[in-house]
Amino acid sequence: MEPFAAVDVIRTKRDGSRLTTEQIDWVVDAYTRGVVAEEQLAALAMAIFLNGMDAEETARWTGAMIESGERLALRVSRPTVDKHSTGGVGDKITLPLAPLVAACGAAVPQLSGRGLGHTGGTLDKLESIPGWRAELSAEEIRDQLETVGAVVCAATPTLAPADRKLYALRDVTATVESVPLIASSIMSKKIAEGAGALVLDVKVGSGAFMKTPEQARELASALVGIGAAHGVATTALLTDMNTPLGRTVGNAVEVAEAVEVLRGGGPDDVVALTLALAREMLTLAGLTGVDPAPVLASGQAYETWCRMIRAQGGDPEAPLPKPEHVHVVTAPESGTLTRLDAYAVGIAAWRLGAGRARKEDPVQAAAGIRCHAKPGERVERGQPLLELHTDTPDTVPAALAALSGAYDVSENSNAPATSGEGIMLETLRS
Amino acid sequence: MEPFAAVDVIRTKRDGSRLTTEQIDWVVDAYTRGVVAEEQLAALAMAIFLNGMDAEETARWTGAMIESGERLALRVSRPTVDKHSTGGVGDKITLPLAPLVAACGAAVPQLSGRGLGHTGGTLDKLESIPGWRAELSAEEIRDQLETVGAVVCAATPTLAPADRKLYALRDVTATVESVPLIASSIMSKKIAEGAGALVLDVKVGSGAFMKTPEQARELASALVGIGAAHGVATTALLTDMNTPLGRTVGNAVEVAEAVEVLRGGGPDDVVALTLALAREMLTLAGLTGVDPAPVLASGQAYETWCRMIRAQGGDPEAPLPKPEHVHVVTAPESGTLTRLDAYAVGIAAWRLGAGRARKEDPVQAAAGIRCHAKPGERVERGQPLLELHTDTPDTVPAALAALSGAYDVSENSNAPATSGEGIMLETLRS
Repeated sequence: MEPFAAVDVIRTKRDGSRLTTEQIDWVVDAYTRGVVAEEQLAALAMAIFLNGMDAEETARWTGAMIESGERLALRVSRPTVDKHSTGGVGDKITLPLAPLVAACGAAVPQLSGRGLGHTGGTLDKLESIPGWRAELSAEEIRDQLETVGAVVCAATPTLAPADRKLYALRDVTATVESVPLIASSIMSKKIAEGAGALVLDVKVGSGAFMKTPEQARELASALVGIGAAHGVATTALLTDMNTPLGRTVGNAVEVAEAVEVLRGGGPDDVVALTLALAREMLTLAGLTGVDPAPVLASGQAYETWCRMIRAQGGDPEAPLPKPEHVHVVTAPESGTLTRLDAYAVGIAAWRLGAGRARKEDPVQAAAGIRCHAKPGERVERGQPLLELHTDTPDTVPAALAALSGAYDVSENSNAPATSGEGIMLETLRS
Repeated sequence: MEPFAAVDVIRTKRDGSRLTTEQIDWVVDAYTRGVVAEEQLAALAMAIFLNGMDAEETARWTGAMIESGERLALRVSRPTVDKHSTGGVGDKITLPLAPLVAACGAAVPQLSGRGLGHTGGTLDKLESIPGWRAELSAEEIRDQLETVGAVVCAATPTLAPADRKLYALRDVTATVESVPLIASSIMSKKIAEGAGALVLDVKVGSGAFMKTPEQARELASALVGIGAAHGVATTALLTDMNTPLGRTVGNAVEVAEAVEVLRGGGPDDVVALTLALAREMLTLAGLTGVDPAPVLASGQAYETWCRMIRAQGGDPEAPLPKPEHVHVVTAPESGTLTRLDAYAVGIAAWRLGAGRARKEDPVQAAAGIRCHAKPGERVERGQPLLELHTDTPDTVPAALAALSGAYDVSENSNAPATSGEGIMLETLRS
């Protein structure tokens, strides 16, 4: 005998009331067991979308999703800390960040998903490295955390299975863009993976899920609140996503740029964001005395990167895949590039084959875009502005269509160059 | 290739916008075909519940549901007119009304459902008549309309199949109580059955679906608007449902009371409502010169009743089933009965076996309640107030529990007797 009827739980939220702890625990568990039907959870999700959940309900909903599966017990000798980004264009930060924080003394268990839509997935990027594999057992994750200090791998299906089921349902019922549902989805997976602390990179702008600082702040606040409720020290950074991060968008091109950063070079904004997130992670891990900047500059982080890639079967020295076709977009006039829209570049890279429309689609390792100029930089008429990479040249017209109107060049502009620090907007701490 | 994606249609209503004609036609048709999944329509139904549909959307939604099945072509020589009640306690009005209006010269095609919950179903009541059968073919319906003028039978599954599917979904997703969804459900079935005009009895009060005149008026207005949009002359009467109609609630007991009315007797309120609805129906059918009162008083309507019952295999002269057990509730003191709550009496009759909890449950023909007094009438301490009929005496305690606090007897009251005309509250015409 079930303690509740699904219709009564749906009616509670439909009529604008709070769900009780018992109702939330039951409905998430009963949905996972198949006792609450897909159509019932769809109606409940829409009622939550339209009538909301408060901080306490959202924290409990997250807890119920965590309890739907196992919670990894990461018995490692170092403090564990993880990072999650809400998704941006050219956002390869995990690649330099995980080995950097590991090289500074913490352990970084980063269980990731694959990309869907215009923002790429970390696993898709790493899979452009010959030999590298994303699937690890819980035992392998623990071993690699102990020996290397950093793991980036696929989330196991045993973590928060309720979220997996609910996410697929939200995707087909137009109930994705709900702050309590987004926040509980992110945090249930991250808390279940067992890290002791968590830094969230909440993206704001055209290329991000959250278009305005207000929306991003609301999500950041919900995320930090859930972390606090579950005893996981959590910090959220709001960062700009109106223009792509760095100078590359895609898979292999982003890995190459990450390696530049790990070797002490790379674009200012990628370096600055990597260091800012590393400092927050080290602070939460209790390693307050460690400055990540020299660890990055000295090549120590790069050594950890190589060990991390090798531990998962990859060859960090192997040449990365090259595209079969390159199409160059030139600057229409001479002047300053004043705008390069992240969303348009993300869509173009996706259409070139860097991303997927459905989760079972393959991606092209070599597809993507190289940006020869970033906003604030000078360009000369006829010189390369964007380089489109793909193995399927028939995709180029659609990519060019996405880029129509995506950038502005102005003759007389004092637009400041994209500064590394300029992309950090706000910090929320629990 | 489908012209729309279900998520886009859901998102439109989720975000508070109007659905277009094309979106509505597609989503209802695609749901009927199984292309739009149950969980997608559940999310849409909740978005409609919370964000509403305007009159134009509701009319189109109704049209799309009608087009999901066949529309009966009632080629009969008389004008056709039907009645629908939103459901009340003791509401046996269809039984005298259909033969009365037929005896006045119109044709009444009444396709009904079975009762669910505390309000009884017309088919359940008629099935207490030995031999009577509810299932007729479209051919039989047309023949009987031509020869007798009145048919009360089960709706065929080919009428508005989208509504059948959607109603089952709404039932499990807490999306029943939405005015546009209720109104389109009622009107799609009624318009599909092919009557040229329609009178709606919208009940208001404790025993009704709509508890307040405001709610009932909103529903009545939606119903009349849909009728007008589809070229079906429609009138809605708001009538009181705070106390049971007549003196009987159940199956066979209500048939017996209907026969009393058809023989020129019966309770004032049942007679008055029957005549009021008959007048509206005759007006809409263009038979404005016909007064139904003498047709009822003279026994002509009773003759039509007998022919209608015989045409469907029933024996109108056969004794009706008697209950195996009768439990009498006596008046607690002498005075005037000032209140007898319709909802409580409906629940009690349901628990005695007159109704069903699930649509596959059987009902007891003899179960029900006889009210020895109506509000405004004098009662003497220790005299019978309510008679509980059942074949399963173990249900009596639960029925008595439902009746606890359901009536008041006052020594010094000037409460007026229940008048027949007093139950008519308002009339809305298209």
